[in-house]
Amino acid sequence: MNSAAVIGLGLIGGSLARDFAARGVRILAADRDDGAIERAIEDGVVAERLDLRSVDADVVVIAAPVIDAVAVLRELAAGVMNAPLVIDVGSAKSSIVAVASSLPFAERFIGCHPLAGDHRSGYEASRRGMFDGERVYVCPGARSSEESMKRAIRFWEELGSSAVVMDAAQHDRLMASVSHLPQIASSALANAIRSASIAPSDLGRGGRDMTRLAASSPELWTQLCLDNAEEISRALETYRETLAQFAHALEDRDAEGLGALFSEARGFASRL
Amino acid sequence: MNSAAVIGLGLIGGSLARDFAARGVRILAADRDDGAIERAIEDGVVAERLDLRSVDADVVVIAAPVIDAVAVLRELAAGVMNAPLVIDVGSAKSSIVAVASSLPFAERFIGCHPLAGDHRSGYEASRRGMFDGERVYVCPGARSSEESMKRAIRFWEELGSSAVVMDAAQHDRLMASVSHLPQIASSALANAIRSASIAPSDLGRGGRDMTRLAASSPELWTQLCLDNAEEISRALETYRETLAQFAHALEDRDAEGLGALFSEARGFASRL
Repeated sequence: MNSAAVIGLGLIGGSLARDFAARGVRILAADRDDGAIERAIEDGVVAERLDLRSVDADVVVIAAPVIDAVAVLRELAAGVMNAPLVIDVGSAKSSIVAVASSLPFAERFIGCHPLAGDHRSGYEASRRGMFDGERVYVCPGARSSEESMKRAIRFWEELGSSAVVMDAAQHDRLMASVSHLPQIASSALANAIRSASIAPSDLGRGGRDMTRLAASSPELWTQLCLDNAEEISRALETYRETLAQFAHALEDRDAEGLGALFSEARGFASRL
Repeated sequence: MNSAAVIGLGLIGGSLARDFAARGVRILAADRDDGAIERAIEDGVVAERLDLRSVDADVVVIAAPVIDAVAVLRELAAGVMNAPLVIDVGSAKSSIVAVASSLPFAERFIGCHPLAGDHRSGYEASRRGMFDGERVYVCPGARSSEESMKRAIRFWEELGSSAVVMDAAQHDRLMASVSHLPQIASSALANAIRSASIAPSDLGRGGRDMTRLAASSPELWTQLCLDNAEEISRALETYRETLAQFAHALEDRDAEGLGALFSEARGFASRL
């Protein structure tokens, strides 16, 4: 791989660009924020600005927020794009994989989701080695070619990630529980504590750990929620039920019931 | 301070014993688990076993779980206990402070709650310096003397903690939101994810961060929940309302509403 076009130089796109630039890959990049591109050029990470109407690179990485990613896909489809591999890096896969399946480069598109990153965002937060040792979900579309799958898997393995191939719908169901629900649990907890007129500085370690995620980008999470709304709603309903179990046991001062609920949770968390 | 009696050699009691032993204070200790005492004696942390019927020390620290702590208080009251200061270290303060107020050594008792520790428990998890730089809530009872308050504050300052004096009821209301609710949020989240037949190894960083607390001791948390049930119920009700707001916005595919909820949460969490 000699060149990579990275669209969106945020936490994920910026970190990918840094890793590949360090491996001698020529990085072409586009971002809504021209300042990010300028800084990345100054940093020696990006070689030149990318024009979406005419993309000449060995791989195109769409690292824009979920809904923008769909717009970027269409824009790419309207231009000339010869890259043998096109991937995205969003946390929800069904809708983007479906859209890509209807585009001219459907065979070359593979939906990807690296399990990396944290509550920070933007090029400033990007860093080398973010994908090393992490898992990446690789979700082919109905028309993706075998060759594209191999390329996508090699792309991530090059960065030290391990690829897990999964159907997009199954991926989104899983993410609703293991990623999207925890985000909402954290944000709603922050809102509950805030509504009790409590300052962040009054939180102990546990409270801080449980609300740190709430600092994540509202735009990104709103888009993700809309994109995976059905699965997230289902997961959230389950969470509200498990919380109701605690509420009822508390109301009844039911020591045995509370003990059983905390023990069940410990059984799960002790295998983390 | 030349000697300290520590009742309960778990995470908190064991860490206190380590810190004071390192400062040359003679530690007398009692624990339901004789193995913990033996290990602490081998470690050079504990000088000798403590007999609750006859306690001769400059300070008595009750570091047993909440409900045991009340039993320990009564046992101390039935024996001979000349210590000028008696403190506990539990996370709920109203009930123990009320019980202590009716005992012969009411003037010498101060309820304390160090904001230290994590999801681990037991003597094995105890360590030096755990209280350094941390906050400790100091809650006097109706009959606590000024002198005892000064002693309690000095006790914690010696370990590098900063003491915050607070009424026990106000403390318990605050803890319900900043500590007890986050614990239930984490445990219920673990139960929700588990009920979706998802393995802990499928969690990403956010999901792991949000369920790590769920590994905490079920016994300790059951006791705490019963001890502070009313305030926790109120906090949990607020949390269920803020979660319902997310559920409704999701159901309505309300981008603006979701954005506002996530933004409110970020406003709180970015000040952590």
